Amino acid sequence: MKKRIGVLLSGRGSNFEAIAENVAAGHIPNAEIAIVISNREGAPGIERARARGIETRVIPSKGLEREVYDRQVVAVLREKQVDLVCLAGFMRLLSPYFVAAFPQHILNIHPSLLPSFPGLEAQRQALEHGVKWSGCSVHFVDENLDAGPIIVQTPVEVLDTDTPETLAARILKEEHRIYTEAVRIVFGGRFRIEGRRVVGV
Amino acid sequence: MKKRIGVLLSGRGSNFEAIAENVAAGHIPNAEIAIVISNREGAPGIERARARGIETRVIPSKGLEREVYDRQVVAVLREKQVDLVCLAGFMRLLSPYFVAAFPQHILNIHPSLLPSFPGLEAQRQALEHGVKWSGCSVHFVDENLDAGPIIVQTPVEVLDTDTPETLAARILKEEHRIYTEAVRIVFGGRFRIEGRRVVGV
Repeated sequence: MKKRIGVLLSGRGSNFEAIAENVAAGHIPNAEIAIVISNREGAPGIERARARGIETRVIPSKGLEREVYDRQVVAVLREKQVDLVCLAGFMRLLSPYFVAAFPQHILNIHPSLLPSFPGLEAQRQALEHGVKWSGCSVHFVDENLDAGPIIVQTPVEVLDTDTPETLAARILKEEHRIYTEAVRIVFGGRFRIEGRRVVGV
Repeated sequence: MKKRIGVLLSGRGSNFEAIAENVAAGHIPNAEIAIVISNREGAPGIERARARGIETRVIPSKGLEREVYDRQVVAVLREKQVDLVCLAGFMRLLSPYFVAAFPQHILNIHPSLLPSFPGLEAQRQALEHGVKWSGCSVHFVDENLDAGPIIVQTPVEVLDTDTPETLAARILKEEHRIYTEAVRIVFGGRFRIEGRRVVGV
């Protein structure tokens, strides 16, 4: 049986595409993307998933209470027998209900070296703070923003000439690499969580 | 005229020693350490400075209000015609009076990639948070804790097997390198501060 990935996105979903390519190339062995769900109509990531022949679902979130919405999404993920949920630019916090439905099996990627610069526009935050190194982080998701145990990080140097856009572009390259690395680690199962630390066993 | 460095420390002063060695080796051109000041009797860094033939002063801080103490220290630094103040494990916040006395000429080093993990035991904080990369930062000092504009940072990977001590030892090696780099940048003067960003010109 292949491991089944469910992807949640709200926008272009470039991290979804990187995972899809790495699944297709065999870099995530014995896995497939079972469903791509967007909370926004017209998210470009949905079109890209369709172009790859991957099943998609748009479940609009507008006006719904968090858990009411999350119950709809979890129902679809269960229907599709998803083993692992990957957030790829999904612009919503998850409810405790959602988190409890996939314990230690929801991942998110964030374009900073957490705990620095959680939240929106992390690359702009990093530039404005004047850090010389930023990066990206893949972490388990809990109910808090960009806050669960960290699985993989990688540093990216900030250049004097950087704008938020040029820095974001260099970080994005690394995001595409480490998200796949994190999925491999989680599917491999050779780790344990000690407090907040994710360590190999 | 050589540029004159004043060092403030409270303990062993390993970063002071690294700077002293790099000054002696000519890696910080045209500079000398004019004075090493400790706020604690018996700080090992004071003995080490004496062994190098560098002038030292112990100015006990115990029981003194911050600015009362800082006025004593600033008076000595001025007497010694210090151009640049380097904090090297100096366990006190500086008053606005001290900061204003050496505008953009007080440096500190901190064993994390700021703004992550300011304050005490940064390496233990990093381990407990579960980050995969930490590092160190040299920054201009303001009245706040580990908070001024960052001059140099470098990342250091955190290993699954690390203890606070092993991580601290690897970070310390990088501290010794980047503190000298930061002093060179500040003495070189080829930078400007835009908001919080220190950028080359």
